[in-house]
Amino acid sequence: MPATDTPGGGKLPLSATKRTRLRRYRQFGQADRDSLYAVLNAGLVAHLGVITTGGWPMVVPTCYGYDPETLYLHGSVASQSLNTAGPVCVTITLADGLVLARSVFEHTINYRSAMIYGQPRQVTDPAERLAGLRIITEHVAPGQWDYARQPSRKDLAAVRLLALPLEEASVKIRTGPPADGDSPDAALGLWAGELPLAATWQQPVPDPALPPGTPIPAHIRSRAGTCAGRSPSRVVT
Amino acid sequence: MPATDTPGGGKLPLSATKRTRLRRYRQFGQADRDSLYAVLNAGLVAHLGVITTGGWPMVVPTCYGYDPETLYLHGSVASQSLNTAGPVCVTITLADGLVLARSVFEHTINYRSAMIYGQPRQVTDPAERLAGLRIITEHVAPGQWDYARQPSRKDLAAVRLLALPLEEASVKIRTGPPADGDSPDAALGLWAGELPLAATWQQPVPDPALPPGTPIPAHIRSRAGTCAGRSPSRVVT
Repeated sequence: MPATDTPGGGKLPLSATKRTRLRRYRQFGQADRDSLYAVLNAGLVAHLGVITTGGWPMVVPTCYGYDPETLYLHGSVASQSLNTAGPVCVTITLADGLVLARSVFEHTINYRSAMIYGQPRQVTDPAERLAGLRIITEHVAPGQWDYARQPSRKDLAAVRLLALPLEEASVKIRTGPPADGDSPDAALGLWAGELPLAATWQQPVPDPALPPGTPIPAHIRSRAGTCAGRSPSRVVT
Repeated sequence: MPATDTPGGGKLPLSATKRTRLRRYRQFGQADRDSLYAVLNAGLVAHLGVITTGGWPMVVPTCYGYDPETLYLHGSVASQSLNTAGPVCVTITLADGLVLARSVFEHTINYRSAMIYGQPRQVTDPAERLAGLRIITEHVAPGQWDYARQPSRKDLAAVRLLALPLEEASVKIRTGPPADGDSPDAALGLWAGELPLAATWQQPVPDPALPPGTPIPAHIRSRAGTCAGRSPSRVVT
């Protein structure tokens, strides 16, 4: 099921296909590329869904990075999933808080999520492997590509890297208060609102194996105290 | 592929099957039930992986709750996934921080994750629906079941609820510093360590539709400032 077989196909905006047409919560659909980049940029871990050779679904968490046209997924996950030659669905979700309504039934969460469908390919070209690894590294740990030792040829040979075209995707975002503010339940007099959730980078913890006094580089130190999942859109190219 | 067909089958400890045998990072495997409960307890959103009727994988984020034997998944996700009668894989992941090594190749993240495989069933019995909804609500928003208006018969009829046996699962946890502290790269003199990530509940935001002065109940107010994903194991029974 190559991605090019899907209807739609144009790269801008994201193609609307049978898979990405939102069946519920259509009001949250934001079928534009900037929304996709914003979710990708804010996320840290993707959930990679595959059909295994045994015929069952498997969902594996993994790190990722992206350029304007391609999602790169790190191969340090169960090799079983990466060997699967079939289509995949990659979902990135940020939970932004609870939506506390007057009725249990209207409770939900505020979130941002992106689902990307397609046929990934194993990246085998050494130059693209290096570029893909840089993209993933700079997404997860900005500044580390230039600071840490870059991959040797032996490192590169051991890396497993998947590339997935950013062609067939859907984005859903829910924000704001609960939906029952103008329902009969509003007369119950109960409190209702949001309980936001924020992920924050903490103070760096040195490796006990470090020689005492090894300075923490600024690009790591300056991240402490900042919110993960809230940075402005940034695409490594 | 009913869960009872899988080899192993004993409920304590978790069964080791072809699906849950860890192929990589075996050293992080913690095949005991308490580890599973700890990850389930700490998580907020699960990623539900299904094979759609069209034959492609789909990964949907959704809320959940659990009792000692069953994972309950909320149905407010694309009904396409819930209609699928096949096996599922549900993955819950908590990203606890970055592992910043001397070499790019050794970078990883600290995380806790649980993968649960099985054949879910739609919950149709009204009493079990009510119990399952309570379990999900109290997992996501403790205290809200008794505070908010509980589901009416009409509410219950509209709810879609999946139940998945907690029989076939694997848990992976990575903690601690990078792995290259005793490698030749240690001589590079670079800083290495962890950059922890913590999710914290923020101050409640009242629904603008609320009458002014509506008090925030203690069970919501007291959550602000506390860490999500860090609370001790708690199973609603």
